[in-house]
Amino acid sequence: MLTELRGIAEKNKSYRSYIGLGYYDCIVPKVIIRNMLENAGWTSPYTPYQPEIAQGRLESLLNFQTMICDLTGLDVANASLLDEATAVAEAACLAARSTKRNTILYDKQLHPQNLAVLKTRAEPLDITLVPIDDIENPNVTRDVAGVIVQYPDTEGKIFDLNALIENTHNAGGLVIMACDLLALTMIRPPGDLGADIAVGSAQRFGLPLGYGGPHPAFMAVAKRDAKNSLARSMPGRIVGVSKDAQGNKAYRLALQTREQHIRRDKATSNICTAQALPANIAAMYAVYHGPQRLNAIAKSIHKSTAYLAEQLRKNGFTVAHSTYFDTIKVKTKNLTDLRVKCEERRINLRFFDDGHVGIALDETILAQDIQDILYIFGIEMEKTIIEKEISETVCPLIGNSDHARRTPYLTHEIFNKYHSESQIIRYMKRLENKDLSLVHSMIPLGSCTMKLNASAELLPLSWPQFSNIHPFAPIDQTRGYQQIFNDLEKWLSEMTGYDSFSLQPNSGANGEYAGLLAIREYLKSIDQEQRKICLIPTSAHGTNPASAQLANFKEELAAIMITYPSTHGVFESSIVDVCNKIHENGGQVYLDGANFNAQVGLCRPGDYGSDVSHLNLHKTFCIPHGGGGPGMGPIGVKSHLSPFLPGHPLVPLLGRSEGAVAGTPWGSSSILTITWAYIRLMGGDGLRAASQVAILNANYMAKRLEEGGYRVVYKDEQGLNAHEFIIDCKPFKKSAGIDVVDIAKRLMDYGFHSPTMAWPVHDCLMIEPTESEDKAEMDRFVDSLLSIREEIQKIEEGLLDRDINPLKMAPHTLQVCVDSKWDRPYSREMAAFPAEWCHHKLFPTVGRIDDQYGDRNLICSCPPMELYK
Amino acid sequence: MLTELRGIAEKNKSYRSYIGLGYYDCIVPKVIIRNMLENAGWTSPYTPYQPEIAQGRLESLLNFQTMICDLTGLDVANASLLDEATAVAEAACLAARSTKRNTILYDKQLHPQNLAVLKTRAEPLDITLVPIDDIENPNVTRDVAGVIVQYPDTEGKIFDLNALIENTHNAGGLVIMACDLLALTMIRPPGDLGADIAVGSAQRFGLPLGYGGPHPAFMAVAKRDAKNSLARSMPGRIVGVSKDAQGNKAYRLALQTREQHIRRDKATSNICTAQALPANIAAMYAVYHGPQRLNAIAKSIHKSTAYLAEQLRKNGFTVAHSTYFDTIKVKTKNLTDLRVKCEERRINLRFFDDGHVGIALDETILAQDIQDILYIFGIEMEKTIIEKEISETVCPLIGNSDHARRTPYLTHEIFNKYHSESQIIRYMKRLENKDLSLVHSMIPLGSCTMKLNASAELLPLSWPQFSNIHPFAPIDQTRGYQQIFNDLEKWLSEMTGYDSFSLQPNSGANGEYAGLLAIREYLKSIDQEQRKICLIPTSAHGTNPASAQLANFKEELAAIMITYPSTHGVFESSIVDVCNKIHENGGQVYLDGANFNAQVGLCRPGDYGSDVSHLNLHKTFCIPHGGGGPGMGPIGVKSHLSPFLPGHPLVPLLGRSEGAVAGTPWGSSSILTITWAYIRLMGGDGLRAASQVAILNANYMAKRLEEGGYRVVYKDEQGLNAHEFIIDCKPFKKSAGIDVVDIAKRLMDYGFHSPTMAWPVHDCLMIEPTESEDKAEMDRFVDSLLSIREEIQKIEEGLLDRDINPLKMAPHTLQVCVDSKWDRPYSREMAAFPAEWCHHKLFPTVGRIDDQYGDRNLICSCPPMELYK
Repeated sequence: MLTELRGIAEKNKSYRSYIGLGYYDCIVPKVIIRNMLENAGWTSPYTPYQPEIAQGRLESLLNFQTMICDLTGLDVANASLLDEATAVAEAACLAARSTKRNTILYDKQLHPQNLAVLKTRAEPLDITLVPIDDIENPNVTRDVAGVIVQYPDTEGKIFDLNALIENTHNAGGLVIMACDLLALTMIRPPGDLGADIAVGSAQRFGLPLGYGGPHPAFMAVAKRDAKNSLARSMPGRIVGVSKDAQGNKAYRLALQTREQHIRRDKATSNICTAQALPANIAAMYAVYHGPQRLNAIAKSIHKSTAYLAEQLRKNGFTVAHSTYFDTIKVKTKNLTDLRVKCEERRINLRFFDDGHVGIALDETILAQDIQDILYIFGIEMEKTIIEKEISETVCPLIGNSDHARRTPYLTHEIFNKYHSESQIIRYMKRLENKDLSLVHSMIPLGSCTMKLNASAELLPLSWPQFSNIHPFAPIDQTRGYQQIFNDLEKWLSEMTGYDSFSLQPNSGANGEYAGLLAIREYLKSIDQEQRKICLIPTSAHGTNPASAQLANFKEELAAIMITYPSTHGVFESSIVDVCNKIHENGGQVYLDGANFNAQVGLCRPGDYGSDVSHLNLHKTFCIPHGGGGPGMGPIGVKSHLSPFLPGHPLVPLLGRSEGAVAGTPWGSSSILTITWAYIRLMGGDGLRAASQVAILNANYMAKRLEEGGYRVVYKDEQGLNAHEFIIDCKPFKKSAGIDVVDIAKRLMDYGFHSPTMAWPVHDCLMIEPTESEDKAEMDRFVDSLLSIREEIQKIEEGLLDRDINPLKMAPHTLQVCVDSKWDRPYSREMAAFPAEWCHHKLFPTVGRIDDQYGDRNLICSCPPMELYK
Repeated sequence: MLTELRGIAEKNKSYRSYIGLGYYDCIVPKVIIRNMLENAGWTSPYTPYQPEIAQGRLESLLNFQTMICDLTGLDVANASLLDEATAVAEAACLAARSTKRNTILYDKQLHPQNLAVLKTRAEPLDITLVPIDDIENPNVTRDVAGVIVQYPDTEGKIFDLNALIENTHNAGGLVIMACDLLALTMIRPPGDLGADIAVGSAQRFGLPLGYGGPHPAFMAVAKRDAKNSLARSMPGRIVGVSKDAQGNKAYRLALQTREQHIRRDKATSNICTAQALPANIAAMYAVYHGPQRLNAIAKSIHKSTAYLAEQLRKNGFTVAHSTYFDTIKVKTKNLTDLRVKCEERRINLRFFDDGHVGIALDETILAQDIQDILYIFGIEMEKTIIEKEISETVCPLIGNSDHARRTPYLTHEIFNKYHSESQIIRYMKRLENKDLSLVHSMIPLGSCTMKLNASAELLPLSWPQFSNIHPFAPIDQTRGYQQIFNDLEKWLSEMTGYDSFSLQPNSGANGEYAGLLAIREYLKSIDQEQRKICLIPTSAHGTNPASAQLANFKEELAAIMITYPSTHGVFESSIVDVCNKIHENGGQVYLDGANFNAQVGLCRPGDYGSDVSHLNLHKTFCIPHGGGGPGMGPIGVKSHLSPFLPGHPLVPLLGRSEGAVAGTPWGSSSILTITWAYIRLMGGDGLRAASQVAILNANYMAKRLEEGGYRVVYKDEQGLNAHEFIIDCKPFKKSAGIDVVDIAKRLMDYGFHSPTMAWPVHDCLMIEPTESEDKAEMDRFVDSLLSIREEIQKIEEGLLDRDINPLKMAPHTLQVCVDSKWDRPYSREMAAFPAEWCHHKLFPTVGRIDDQYGDRNLICSCPPMELYK
């Protein structure tokens, strides 16, 4: 497999890309790549919903938020969004929600893909988009929800935004800035300028280009009022500080009540999986470099840019703008000659329609590269002279420039103490070792398919032929990638029974959204625009109603969103009937692919009547969960929906729509290699066997748990389950005062991550073992639940106290177990080592966390150092 | 640096090599490579001299020993040797030592490099080597210490060895078999045949070819008497089972009294650093595959070989032998045409002088490869037919063959439960997390230079252009490697002031040996053979006297072996005088390079009077210690010694001697890329600064410790130290009954690895921080020692009990600290968390280990599973 894939990789051409447009090459610190991106301890954990065994990545995500707050100069940041383009769209929606207005003004110099996604998202929500004529003094009326600008803009120019911000605020609107994060180390930050919302990408903080991703986007908002209304309405996950049962500092996801699994169609966005792992890498890049080195990197790029602009001007070229950070726009003299020389030097520039080229420099630039760029413009200079002259160049942004940043950033100690390889590796390892991941034990989360991510599947991700390609590089440089896309579209179509696939959506929820949009556009195309009712069973995924809300289905039957096998873990035999009924009534069937791991090789949505599905490649197809992303959510459709699959403004996609749902044509392309490798390794027989074993495993566990006194809530007519099942914990409330959360936390003491808790059925646990787990591991897990059942029985029988017992007090940290004071009516051993294998378990590093306390006292950036002790 | 090195890598040509000669391509399980070879948790720990924080790799090394015992059918194995060739030589010496005889008979069909190293080692020890005429019935006289055979032999043939073994035993000699480990899954093992000693290489168990290594060699011996005399006289480290203070099973290095740091010139060999990390990889390969899959791999290779032999015979070629495992020797018809076709298909075969070629197949062989090999012989066949016919081929070694193995192997549960990626990754992670390494804290071992191994320096090791090259591939396929060797020889010469370098020695001790041999041969060349006295200061490294013993220096002054700065951590100002005096008296100066980290860029052995040194690339030059290897010990010499540097029988080395000290011309070539990367990254200024900071760090720590009540034992005239220093712990014996070992073990409770203990001065600790550690980390370590000093004072003052105190009871495991029963006169917190940072320390997984118990009750393979609980 690897030999074959290496052959495919060789078909990609890795040119130096100075295209810009929000994507920049960077020097990826090898110590971070090897110890985070290439380390299952960081790639294989789940979203930190069980914070007591996730303090490591929660700390790192808090570093990410702090970094974003500091660099943007704003107050509250979230823990990543999917990409800059969707972040722009989310910001527009946030502005509309907050102001209850429906008009957004936008800078014509937004990156084109940002505008494209904004347009896609605005239309179904009846948000009106209006371009700004005079960016330095726009006319803002009182119906304007927000004004969006690119900063610096797509041509590299830094505008004076004072009037824009003042006019907007005077009109009661919000100012949204899409920023370059590295530029913010040198130019005035949005918060300083008075903006309300900043979004952007942290890609150039250590993430490979990867032909489009995965990259972490961010959003930060100003705290304008005591209620933090913008923060509380902000999309995406937010990490916050709270305290644990012992009163110690502890991190956890804050304000979860905003999210879809609780708010459903009232949720602030449909974002679920985001870009946790890339965000952690970007945060660690900032921790590693610290403010001084980051500033030095930015200065060096800026100096080279200034030098390049100067040389071009000297040689008679017109450089479009005089205020810039790292990107300039130049009028060419002989475009044909320039293109030939680009090819000769293997360099990509941005070609504007008007005969200009854009050049965006980055961290990797050496004198040699400047020499090559000058050569492309017909200017020949010696490398040593270039080196010397760059060092003597005066930076326009330094000194008295109005645009120069004057406020400090990354002042927190965490960004000022781990600057050597020894320091950063120990910090990363310390955080890693706080978190439970697949390297420790099974993570049997129902509906999340936490399966094995084989090392062999993850290797190609690090090959330069895949990682060093700009998302807008010419197609003829990406033949290898194109082959992978073609293979995947073919293979996934074969597995699902659909006719075509779009690989663009970069999360499951984004896939759902794209699928519903396709239905909407299709209905429009056959004059059925009035169909706007989307049926959603109450057992559906929380992202479904939130996604449906976005596409604004009302009034008449448009579609049904259904999960198969159902989220109850059952192959409902009525599936064909349901699909038929929907079709008979003129509706379309959206089948959620979250449970596809029970179907591969056994049945196909396209066969039993579905029109469209998304597949979670980070579930069934082995992309590691990354502690909350990256994911990929490609959608498959029947042929009548194909023309409505997403397109792209910069990269023509044959037979697809105008609209884009993500910033890059094939989403986070680089991780598609993982799925390709998995399918290629398994083959048809292997994939079928995997589904069979996944189902067998679930039924084995269900039977053992039933025999041990747990009730399995749903089964099919034969008494069987699909690849997951639900056990009822409600009876223990009455019999022993035990809530399902007590069982979940007690499982940590046994060294396990809880199954999915209280979803889709209250007071229940949903268990999905996947095919990756062997009998011994499943037995260990079942034995733990049975042992917990015995503990509950002891409470029922009065042998354990109803309030102070190992379940109510769980999880037990090392500190608690070693404490001289032990006044509990059960033993230390029962707390720490309830089963034999616990002698090498991972201990939770904090006790049970007080969620309400944290939400009442919202702190979403690094707390003072005293609290770290 | 990486871009430049990638360019160099591209100059290597990675052909398929079916050369054999003890080196075979294999499929390296990516899960093992990524989680062990590419994981600092496994690469950066020290030799497990502090077993309480090394149980993970000790368990894995015990797996290695068990695997070797099982496959060889012998009783006791060691935990790796440097390579097969040195293992053959060690076995000969062991036979001579045990039998007190001096003649060794050898099979003429030994691999040539095995014979070459054997000859080198035999000569100075006056061991007579005699070739065997009739291998199936040799004449063995009563002066024969041992008989060495290659099994299967270098041409691939499997001989009937019954008469050879019987004749040898009748004459009181020992039988030594150099074996192919994979073949032993199918053919009768040495133990079964009645042999006494087996050696060989475990390379093909998951180790890349790497143009020569590092690869783990092994030695196993029969237990013929109650005293285990062969085992007790065996070279190299042996892991054994013992028990800890709580009576639990615990691993540690057994029979250390055999080793040089205790026995000095009476040691059984000079082996110190071996191949711990490669041995662990090989062991994990066996754990991962288990006996069934290993046997399937062997069978599949054997089948392909049988098929190939059959096809060649059918087409009129003469295949030399009829009993073989994976290697055949074939008479060519048109050698020129064959060579052209080899080149065309990018395949390397072994070319014998007599017009025959050797073909050795391996685990990577596919039908495509067989097709290409047949093509080379002018036979064209379809791949599908080949595939089909191979599957139908009858294996000569299966069924009634006299050579077929009939005994089981790898029956222990450990080799039968971790066969999936999930299982093996969790097992590896569990072991990793028991061990303290540089990812946790500094390892301030005096004389061991445990410095940072930057990720960027370790990446190239995994590039196929470096890892997929057979050590005897034609030179024109290794231009990249040659450039690296040339650069290193030039750079190291410049740093040391020597005139030339040999990169062959694959450990420091092997370098010492090669250096002394060069002196010996030089003295012979100038008719000074009578000079045989080698002066060795008592503070010299333990390997020195042992190495000198091997070269047999007696009677008149031949050389001095000296360390600079001295092992007392002082730049002795008399160094120039000493060198002059030795030279005036006709002797040569051997300067031990172990302390070169204090000198790089500051002074040069060649300048102050030394003639020869080895450098430990795994100390000063950033090859990670690997938990006890691999190391590399190149030697630099003044020009008069150059002609006496090691050569190689198969790869001509211009201007070098006939003798080889290792099996491959440039030792473990692949890890030389690490040193190349380090030097290239640092540059001259960086290297000098590193030495300066290393010295500064040591002096800073010494001063702080002095102020806190420790005496620094040696200093120079200015009251300063070099890059390391020694503190005196003797006074505490009397004042508080505290031994230096109590301090060492107590440091574990503070999360640290002890400094070098009781060497080179009894009752002392020798501390070497290296330049990699920052002030905060050094302060943490110093604070720990000062806190321990306070604990000692409390004992002195009677505030802590003299027998039951945190030092005497150290280290404290989690189990002990959590135990309900706590009857010690100090608190649990004092035991577990004596300093603030201990809340995220690595806990020792066993209590203090009883060494004597283990040596008295020697168990050197996996104990019964009950003990694992």
